[in-house]
Amino acid sequence: MRNSRRIVRSCRAMLVVALGFIALPAAAQDPLPSWNDTGPKRAIIAFVTKVTKPGTPDFVPVSHRIATFDNDGTLWAEPPIYFQFEFAIDRIKLLSAAHPEWKTQEPFASLLEGDMQRALARGEQDIMDAIGATHAGMTTESFERIAREWIRTKRDARFKRPYISLVYQPMIELLNYMRSNGFKTFIVSGGGVEFIRAFAEEAYGIPPDQVVGSSGRLKYQMRGDVPELLKLPAVDFVNDKDGKVVGIQKFIGRRPIAAFGNSDGDQQMLEWTAAGKGPRLSVLIHHTDATREWAYDRGSHVGALDKALDMAEAKKWTVVSMKDDWNAIFPKQ
Amino acid sequence: MRNSRRIVRSCRAMLVVALGFIALPAAAQDPLPSWNDTGPKRAIIAFVTKVTKPGTPDFVPVSHRIATFDNDGTLWAEPPIYFQFEFAIDRIKLLSAAHPEWKTQEPFASLLEGDMQRALARGEQDIMDAIGATHAGMTTESFERIAREWIRTKRDARFKRPYISLVYQPMIELLNYMRSNGFKTFIVSGGGVEFIRAFAEEAYGIPPDQVVGSSGRLKYQMRGDVPELLKLPAVDFVNDKDGKVVGIQKFIGRRPIAAFGNSDGDQQMLEWTAAGKGPRLSVLIHHTDATREWAYDRGSHVGALDKALDMAEAKKWTVVSMKDDWNAIFPKQ
Repeated sequence: MRNSRRIVRSCRAMLVVALGFIALPAAAQDPLPSWNDTGPKRAIIAFVTKVTKPGTPDFVPVSHRIATFDNDGTLWAEPPIYFQFEFAIDRIKLLSAAHPEWKTQEPFASLLEGDMQRALARGEQDIMDAIGATHAGMTTESFERIAREWIRTKRDARFKRPYISLVYQPMIELLNYMRSNGFKTFIVSGGGVEFIRAFAEEAYGIPPDQVVGSSGRLKYQMRGDVPELLKLPAVDFVNDKDGKVVGIQKFIGRRPIAAFGNSDGDQQMLEWTAAGKGPRLSVLIHHTDATREWAYDRGSHVGALDKALDMAEAKKWTVVSMKDDWNAIFPKQ
Repeated sequence: MRNSRRIVRSCRAMLVVALGFIALPAAAQDPLPSWNDTGPKRAIIAFVTKVTKPGTPDFVPVSHRIATFDNDGTLWAEPPIYFQFEFAIDRIKLLSAAHPEWKTQEPFASLLEGDMQRALARGEQDIMDAIGATHAGMTTESFERIAREWIRTKRDARFKRPYISLVYQPMIELLNYMRSNGFKTFIVSGGGVEFIRAFAEEAYGIPPDQVVGSSGRLKYQMRGDVPELLKLPAVDFVNDKDGKVVGIQKFIGRRPIAAFGNSDGDQQMLEWTAAGKGPRLSVLIHHTDATREWAYDRGSHVGALDKALDMAEAKKWTVVSMKDDWNAIFPKQ
């Protein structure tokens, strides 16, 4: 009889464990181990705890738990030049055999000679055109394969590891933490939407339909009796600055309650998020760690952070110092 | 000892029930009670069963279980004129006091006089402009409130019930059935994205970010120190015919494995879906029930179904006859 009782007890324990495991997978352990126990981590946990507590005025239903994340400099590294730009240069080199005119045509000539400063000096439109030239003239499916392969294999010169592994470990933990609390996590990036989609699910657990980015025009056509989607060398939408808020409305259709960025390109997204009713979380990732990653903000040619930093201070947004608030940068290899 | 074994067995049963309940909430009952036991229901269930069976060649991982649904005529009714057009007419009447010029300006004049035929005869561009005029000049949030209120309260002349209740009960069951099998369900409609978003979550359980539709341009601006998104009277994207495939790539970024439509506007979406590798389901809803709903196809001024019906026959897509395959049309009130 004592034996029976013990069995019943252990069965009950099994049941509790089984149900508990499903309902609360991570409750027992620190969901953000790569974050130091400093202000930003506390602010994030306080926010998530607040909006998920039923029966309180700050409670936010799951359907409104929208969190948006910039990509370059917020979820993965961006210097010395945006990785997608590096990808475009590699494409230009590869395609240059079939384009002899590029030897004298800017910005192609400078890029082929490796003179980044001269190429970048010509301004954004030229760069957009160059990227357009290397991203178009193929189907969306071909592009996805090419981009994914490149991101998985191309190695960063300084960190000697593939670009896909230059994601921020604390942000991976944050994405998982927010999702486990009912948030739907979106990327809202100035980068090309199809470039980011090629790795976002593998790297961040974010499916293609939750990636908002800049995009080129597409054309649906038949090749014989096989339908295909062709990428055209024409810009359709630039998802940067004001465009990020427009992109959020176009693609998500609901204002985020939490947003994360790192540059002036994210200012409007953070401002739009902060201006909604109820609890709000606007966070800037500040690149302060030249030893483990990079240190840059005002005047940087990638991820320039100037106005948004002033606004963060004025409006008391959460500013994460990578040096002080993160105890790890990249995932262990 | 025998007693102990019995307890262990019943504990094990409890555990199985507890876990099974979580994994298979609806396995015991018919998930599609408003569908007759005819070809379409069997085809849909066979497809879903096939793609969700692990360890088989036809298995599709959850992340690729994308299903797209046209809205007008597929998820809710569309005659005598698309409901959004009815909404635009009501807006024109409301705004006409401030626009005396509309009394002589087409298509406004015809619409204000209630002469639909004359208004429609002038072609698509005029209609788009009229809709643009009534949908713009306000913030996205104001528009959402106005549209939601209208859809909830405006009553259909024939069925004497609010438009929001003219959704198809069999399709509501189908959406739930597919979602309970790991599908992500999207609306892909020629209608205005913000009009559909105003009711899609309430009516279909589809959140705003899973609605793809036609859209107007937006502008981010400050009113004092409050940021707002203004709707502009300019078309940004027409999500119809070829545009539906482009829209799927822009907004979803992955080819659907199942698609549902009812008109020639859906032909390319169904073709694109069917042309992918592995199991595919392309379904046409055929309006064959003049008694309980409407009967129309070739030559109809709403939801014209001509080429897509021929293609469905040639390619053996699933064609649902509302009269024969559905035992209910609208939800019980």
